[in-house]
Amino acid sequence: MTDREKLSIIKIGGNVLDDAANLKAFLQRFACVEGKKVLVHGGGKIASRMGEKLGFEAKYVDGRRITDDETMDLVTMVYGGLVNKQVVSALQAMGCNAVGLTGADANIMPATKRPVKTIDYGWAGDIDAAAVDAKMLKSFLDIGLTPVFAPLTHDTMGHMLNTNADTIASSLALALSAFFEVHLMYCFEKKGVLQSVEDENSVVRRIDRPTFDAMKATGALHSGILPKIENALLAIEKGVARVIIGHADDLLENLTEDVLGTIIE
Amino acid sequence: MTDREKLSIIKIGGNVLDDAANLKAFLQRFACVEGKKVLVHGGGKIASRMGEKLGFEAKYVDGRRITDDETMDLVTMVYGGLVNKQVVSALQAMGCNAVGLTGADANIMPATKRPVKTIDYGWAGDIDAAAVDAKMLKSFLDIGLTPVFAPLTHDTMGHMLNTNADTIASSLALALSAFFEVHLMYCFEKKGVLQSVEDENSVVRRIDRPTFDAMKATGALHSGILPKIENALLAIEKGVARVIIGHADDLLENLTEDVLGTIIE
Repeated sequence: MTDREKLSIIKIGGNVLDDAANLKAFLQRFACVEGKKVLVHGGGKIASRMGEKLGFEAKYVDGRRITDDETMDLVTMVYGGLVNKQVVSALQAMGCNAVGLTGADANIMPATKRPVKTIDYGWAGDIDAAAVDAKMLKSFLDIGLTPVFAPLTHDTMGHMLNTNADTIASSLALALSAFFEVHLMYCFEKKGVLQSVEDENSVVRRIDRPTFDAMKATGALHSGILPKIENALLAIEKGVARVIIGHADDLLENLTEDVLGTIIE
Repeated sequence: MTDREKLSIIKIGGNVLDDAANLKAFLQRFACVEGKKVLVHGGGKIASRMGEKLGFEAKYVDGRRITDDETMDLVTMVYGGLVNKQVVSALQAMGCNAVGLTGADANIMPATKRPVKTIDYGWAGDIDAAAVDAKMLKSFLDIGLTPVFAPLTHDTMGHMLNTNADTIASSLALALSAFFEVHLMYCFEKKGVLQSVEDENSVVRRIDRPTFDAMKATGALHSGILPKIENALLAIEKGVARVIIGHADDLLENLTEDVLGTIIE
């Protein structure tokens, strides 16, 4: 298994997308990443801004956004159309042969509408990594394409679904580990997992399951980072070669050398 | 050249897209079309409705819509996101392995921003059929995918462009004629080219260049249909096997037998 070809899967969130100069700088670095690669982008604030302009009211239950019909149309337009095609056309201009995709395209990521228990999340989609069509994605990569995923899937019954971009990235990583040595990078607004939220430079360099459990027990970790680390540890445990969490500026600079950020192992 | 595999390229316009029941019925017929196929969709009224809600003002010069920055964002969202992904997810539910694309994706249709002469059309893109990456499209078709094109291209310098769906369909038909026996079908709201605009059933069954010239000279043809027929005749003259103009309900019913509609030859 050690001679598998390397594949980089890189996820960017709103902090990169919301600033045109930031985004351009990131995409220039991304375009230069050698070898096969996949980009997964989140949403950013533009969907909320468009939603406000359209007079769509954002709905929350227990602090969690609900994907009603209007919101589903909004994210399909903004994530699947505006953001995705702007990223694809920008990458094309940088010599990277990008192809914009959602989970519905080529049926790459069929998902399940989240079952209603105490909360009805609306058109939220949960992916089963085993259902990802890694072979189809490999065909795209093999003809020289760089897939760029919007955070959208579908229910295979004719409806698009809103899906968390972190989960899309880890599901792709798991599925593609069947063919590649997958390096998964989560780019966010911090330099990595911080020992102390107040200190931007207190990056924890390495986290494994025992470290994570210990840090959770002491309450050292910011609650927002917990699902990201949990996702990352699961990915490692299921065969992804490497997961790194950090700032976009740091992660793509020296991919071959020892990277900045937090390595999950 | 006679033993080339058949490829159907089908273009649908606003009249099919604007009505959910119409669209579903059309897509069911499209999903049943045998062999390799490509769908090209236009815009429909939803972009204008969204534009109004967003407070974007439609701009016209000499009766022609200008694609300013706001309009470009609008059509990228609505055509490239909302319409395209709704069509793709609907086709997936019907067992057709659709993949949504614009001309920017996989750099399939690089275009040129229309040069400013007397009118500045803004972000309008003109395609050079010779620049279409037919080989890339063939790769998609060969792995069992059905490309679904939104009426968008890109300038290869990082900007999306608004491009007429009829032109996208004929450019794809020309380029793909290098590999396939291409049957191009333009579905619109009439049963075909009408001898008399007042009589819905006065369909002209066959039009070739001399017939077209004669009809133009007598003023028999509605001005709106002229570019469509001109496009179709050019396609035939450049190697497309068959072009048919007609109503969606008629064209996809009996593809193997003598079809209804107007055959351009």
